[in-house]
Amino acid sequence: MPGIMAATTAVPLEETLVIVGVGLIGGSIAAAARRRGLARQIIGVGRNPERLEQARQAGFLDAVVTDPATAGPNAFIVFCTPVNHIAAAVERILPRLPAGAIITDAGSTKRRMCEALADWAGRDPTFLGSHPIAGSEKQGFEHADPELFAGRTCVITPLSGHRPADITRVRRFWAGLGMTVVSLSPAEHDQALASTSHVPHVVAAALADSLSESDRRLTGTGFASTTRIAAGDPDLWTAILCENAGPVADGLLRLQARLGDFERALRAGDVPALKSLLQTAKTKRDALDG
Amino acid sequence: MPGIMAATTAVPLEETLVIVGVGLIGGSIAAAARRRGLARQIIGVGRNPERLEQARQAGFLDAVVTDPATAGPNAFIVFCTPVNHIAAAVERILPRLPAGAIITDAGSTKRRMCEALADWAGRDPTFLGSHPIAGSEKQGFEHADPELFAGRTCVITPLSGHRPADITRVRRFWAGLGMTVVSLSPAEHDQALASTSHVPHVVAAALADSLSESDRRLTGTGFASTTRIAAGDPDLWTAILCENAGPVADGLLRLQARLGDFERALRAGDVPALKSLLQTAKTKRDALDG
Repeated sequence: MPGIMAATTAVPLEETLVIVGVGLIGGSIAAAARRRGLARQIIGVGRNPERLEQARQAGFLDAVVTDPATAGPNAFIVFCTPVNHIAAAVERILPRLPAGAIITDAGSTKRRMCEALADWAGRDPTFLGSHPIAGSEKQGFEHADPELFAGRTCVITPLSGHRPADITRVRRFWAGLGMTVVSLSPAEHDQALASTSHVPHVVAAALADSLSESDRRLTGTGFASTTRIAAGDPDLWTAILCENAGPVADGLLRLQARLGDFERALRAGDVPALKSLLQTAKTKRDALDG
Repeated sequence: MPGIMAATTAVPLEETLVIVGVGLIGGSIAAAARRRGLARQIIGVGRNPERLEQARQAGFLDAVVTDPATAGPNAFIVFCTPVNHIAAAVERILPRLPAGAIITDAGSTKRRMCEALADWAGRDPTFLGSHPIAGSEKQGFEHADPELFAGRTCVITPLSGHRPADITRVRRFWAGLGMTVVSLSPAEHDQALASTSHVPHVVAAALADSLSESDRRLTGTGFASTTRIAAGDPDLWTAILCENAGPVADGLLRLQARLGDFERALRAGDVPALKSLLQTAKTKRDALDG
């Protein structure tokens, strides 16, 4: 009976996927997991029962619970809440979870959170940090995209104490969403993301802020592209920047120095220096698409 | 005979459109003018006869000449060559053009060029500066887009001496490509474009330059968007930045100060200050799309 065989060949990786915080990221994880058959059921957790019920009716969730500890055995729990609230919430829930459960997250910073939860590495249930590098300046599950993660990188940040089976479980989940999974220490992650995401966010915001109302009509697609991420949620980004304050501040200092190099070359009319700065930048930018 | 009437209702604005420099911008002007029936014939001028012949065979041009002064009477000539070469080339050609011809350009800076050519304002033939605010980080007529200008702004920079008929003629041409046409003084233009285009270009380049090879896999769509324009031609952009060195250097100084505000708020852990900076930026960025 080929019909039944076809239905049973795709064994879900997880029995129960629990999404805590069903916004753009949480909704996209739910949609991607459903499309790829990664979990037998998807359960949503959140502060706003009305919004959760809307997400369930929109087809993102099979069920809604108020307490992730009631989601049943072997739950795979992904925290998609603001990054500065994750460690405390995880710490409250872990002691009440049955063995076989695992918590990971989708937060944009890792060092503080993973330090706060380091005692749980290697235990069962456990917490292991993740950062799927994908997102949008938009908010809410209405903008969720089941292909948001496909072809992108996910960083996981296991500590030396984590059990290999738990690392493999988290790695398989993100790989199942179509991501390339990379292991880094939490500090390495935060240092790198300061350069690739957090400093660019501040720069986009500073540029957007510099625009006078009368000059708005004189912007082109370049300005729109360079400042796009400045439309992101200020609360969310304040939390991200504060969680990674040191590396971001250092990155901003280096960038100010670089802008100073351009400024001095311009005032001096130093054409070769300017061209060299722009050529290096172009070479690096071209490599990003290549 | 409705067929003939239909064919004669769309009277071309110009007898002969001459494009000097048939790259991405020149090719897009030719393609847009052809699609909208703005000129009876389109003639290309350039340094590289082989490339020009390719552009003609690709359908962008009706004919190719080596000297724009031979294009015939009443030519509407648009210089799309690098901005630092326009004034000298226009100055060489104007004395050899017949009355009824007019030269404008598509250069990203206006003050130096318009000052150098100010003696020609109000004469016949004449030069009147333009800047259609549209572009791409790509190069070559192969990437030309007939809709590149539709719905965008074109700045024209007439001087007090220009004849109203000439101003109207240039204005109608860009409006015919679907652009909103705005008059500014050349200095006002350069001041505004420093903020909306030239400083953002330097910032995108500085960010692209800051990326280490090992961090490349840790970039997301935010980094890609924020640095996209850094892939632009370094020669072209060196010329643009040098033509507008003072306003761009001043803009970079202000931006460094703003990044310093963020840096200090981060080091001090000043959450309200950070949130306020990000909220102002988001409000301004949202207004750009609105």
